[in-house]
Amino acid sequence: MKENITIIGAGLVGSLLSIYLSKRGYKVKVYERRGDMRKEKMSAGRSINLALSDRGLLALEKVGLAEEIKKISIPMHGRYIHNLDGSSAFQPYGKEGQYINSVSRGTLNMKLMDLAEEQGVEIYFNEKLSKIDWSNEVIEFESNKNKPLPSFKTDLIFGADGAFSAARLQHQLQHGKFNYSQYYIDCGYKELTIPPTSDGEFAMQVNALHIWPRKDYMLIALPNLDKTFTCTLFFPFEGEASFEKLSTPEAVKSFFERTFPDAVKLMPDYINEFFTNPTSSLVTVKCFPWIRGDKFALIGDAAHAIVPFFGQGMNCGFEDCRVLDELIDKHKQDWGKILKEYQTLRKPDGDAIADLAINNFTEMRDKTADPKFLLQKKIEARLHEKYPDKWIPAYSQVTFSPHIRYSEALKRGQMQEAIMQDVMAMPGIEEKWENVEVEDVILRRLNS
Amino acid sequence: MKENITIIGAGLVGSLLSIYLSKRGYKVKVYERRGDMRKEKMSAGRSINLALSDRGLLALEKVGLAEEIKKISIPMHGRYIHNLDGSSAFQPYGKEGQYINSVSRGTLNMKLMDLAEEQGVEIYFNEKLSKIDWSNEVIEFESNKNKPLPSFKTDLIFGADGAFSAARLQHQLQHGKFNYSQYYIDCGYKELTIPPTSDGEFAMQVNALHIWPRKDYMLIALPNLDKTFTCTLFFPFEGEASFEKLSTPEAVKSFFERTFPDAVKLMPDYINEFFTNPTSSLVTVKCFPWIRGDKFALIGDAAHAIVPFFGQGMNCGFEDCRVLDELIDKHKQDWGKILKEYQTLRKPDGDAIADLAINNFTEMRDKTADPKFLLQKKIEARLHEKYPDKWIPAYSQVTFSPHIRYSEALKRGQMQEAIMQDVMAMPGIEEKWENVEVEDVILRRLNS
Repeated sequence: MKENITIIGAGLVGSLLSIYLSKRGYKVKVYERRGDMRKEKMSAGRSINLALSDRGLLALEKVGLAEEIKKISIPMHGRYIHNLDGSSAFQPYGKEGQYINSVSRGTLNMKLMDLAEEQGVEIYFNEKLSKIDWSNEVIEFESNKNKPLPSFKTDLIFGADGAFSAARLQHQLQHGKFNYSQYYIDCGYKELTIPPTSDGEFAMQVNALHIWPRKDYMLIALPNLDKTFTCTLFFPFEGEASFEKLSTPEAVKSFFERTFPDAVKLMPDYINEFFTNPTSSLVTVKCFPWIRGDKFALIGDAAHAIVPFFGQGMNCGFEDCRVLDELIDKHKQDWGKILKEYQTLRKPDGDAIADLAINNFTEMRDKTADPKFLLQKKIEARLHEKYPDKWIPAYSQVTFSPHIRYSEALKRGQMQEAIMQDVMAMPGIEEKWENVEVEDVILRRLNS
Repeated sequence: MKENITIIGAGLVGSLLSIYLSKRGYKVKVYERRGDMRKEKMSAGRSINLALSDRGLLALEKVGLAEEIKKISIPMHGRYIHNLDGSSAFQPYGKEGQYINSVSRGTLNMKLMDLAEEQGVEIYFNEKLSKIDWSNEVIEFESNKNKPLPSFKTDLIFGADGAFSAARLQHQLQHGKFNYSQYYIDCGYKELTIPPTSDGEFAMQVNALHIWPRKDYMLIALPNLDKTFTCTLFFPFEGEASFEKLSTPEAVKSFFERTFPDAVKLMPDYINEFFTNPTSSLVTVKCFPWIRGDKFALIGDAAHAIVPFFGQGMNCGFEDCRVLDELIDKHKQDWGKILKEYQTLRKPDGDAIADLAINNFTEMRDKTADPKFLLQKKIEARLHEKYPDKWIPAYSQVTFSPHIRYSEALKRGQMQEAIMQDVMAMPGIEEKWENVEVEDVILRRLNS
């Protein structure tokens, strides 16, 4: 019977995990590399807000936080597309009443830490992991380096320390056959701001995720409670239009005015921000195994870092916690069995959402500007209305159907996409898309 | 104009590369982590022999070594299949007169080092790389650690230090967006020996690569000049039949007698060897970029470690050297251009042979025992005889067609395999495979 649990990382997933575990009576200590964000200012320009959707909400519900978090988040009912020619279009994410939530990463994290501490979790800040030695059950932190070794025995360690996890590195270094991949896409990102209007209002439609799709790159914007929007430019590092090329204020100005004319009018400080805010990279990390017997497990980004284009990074990490919690019940606290099944269940789902997230970049930056794609979405939405169980669009499976596994959503999505490819190739589909003929073709293919 | 070149690693690829470069007048220094194998005994039990095929030979030809190496290698004209029921079958690798060559890794490496030194290459042994600092152009080795820093400037560095390349690690650590994957297959390997018969002869047919295909695993054997065969068991680490399970001499004996009854009779010492020789793992490494401007490049396994099932690891590394050498001519020693095109050309080929090698494991361990697969090979061989330019079996493209790129071989092979899948599904194919009807189907598909 285990009593003590150590979590590396007090980010979103580490904090939520600590709540889940302390609720079950474990003594939980969390070690965080950074300072306490509740006392120090967060650095600007790095993924300020996030899209919380049903998987994340379900996991928060179990610890009684969902309603409170919904109160401090902003519903986004669909994509608001800003085309280059000045036209715009709104694409609902799902059915009437379905939406995702723009929420501040900092606020959410601080709330989770508060709740964790209320429940007796001990969080230590400025503690950078330097070593985990499984054979001797010793964890070391940099702060202890020159002191007599204050190492301690622990029953179970979780690595919840993100994409560049120090816990994972220790795991890897003490493993003979560790499968590992890190893949950086060719694009990086930079955050910019749209402030409130002069009369203190949101400068654009608030209940939407705004996208300026420009084929190889895009600008997006999410609303914040303070009536600003945080914009993110996803942009190639190198090439014709790239961060490398935009090296002077003049180049930035000329490019933005040409490419995002309507957005530029709303961003008075974008040129300054462009050179002040960091350019960040986007990595997918896959690895295996995630666990060591009943002693260690990776969770969240540390196990499966993904790119942000499906808005599922946090949601997937929260789901890890929920699934793990259910397995604690199922296996009656037998941690050997719990961790083994956790890994068996979550590894294919982590792989699937990683691939889905990569694919969604193409969809967002390129296809959302394509009328044919919009028609396809309309046909799928109609099918979903009429046959809610038979046809669930891939986006809805991932975002609004927390009981469909990511791996299942990927598979069903690919099957549906193959059908839709054929449907979209039907002559005159633009005119007859609401006809029974089209519907019949789809249903027949579905049942074959 | 560069003058000095440093190569990390004096293995097969590092040594051959040093010959190529010193022939062009560069001052080449090679640093090798291990001792000088010409003076010390190599450790037993780790990939003693290799299959040298046309790509490797072409690269050796250019430095005048092909004929000499062929003299100390043993031709293998095909696969000699040992079935579980005691039956056997011979599958030629290609056309009459086409074969691959069993050659001793040690002998080949020593010959390459001798030739390199004759040409003025300086090889330093027991020099373990500890750091490459590109911004200051400093290389450090562990031997220098406690001495005043004997660092030196160098014009160009090659990392030719294998799958677990220390040079690659330095490259990675000083790179913000390095794509990297290491993937271990579930099987490891162990080497065993078939000694000569009591009258000093080869115990089996000498001019073949012997395979005991057993679905999830296999034993293979390659001939050596001393009339022994080196056997390699490719076997799961865990599971029903696995290294984990064979933990006692009794278990090994019972398993081998049941699974490889004919081989057991030829291996008097296999039980002892099983516990003395190491169990090694098999990794695929892919990474990008391979180069840093005109200062650094990875080559051979350091750039693209692959599993051994296509017998192409060394051949691919040698081909890297040949292609690089041709680019030196093309770009008139402009190393920025040379390295850039080297990477552009070789990265897709390294990826392709990595995937081909993984796929070939299934073919060797499983399909070679399947009569349907043997028939498919016969049909393809017949096509190749009749239409040598139109249809080249995938194995022949990789092994006997050094001017077809690996990436092209992978693509053409997949296309041909799709055709053959349909052909093999034709009713009565077993009887009519030599009919014009079958040929017509294939040719029509090929031309469509």
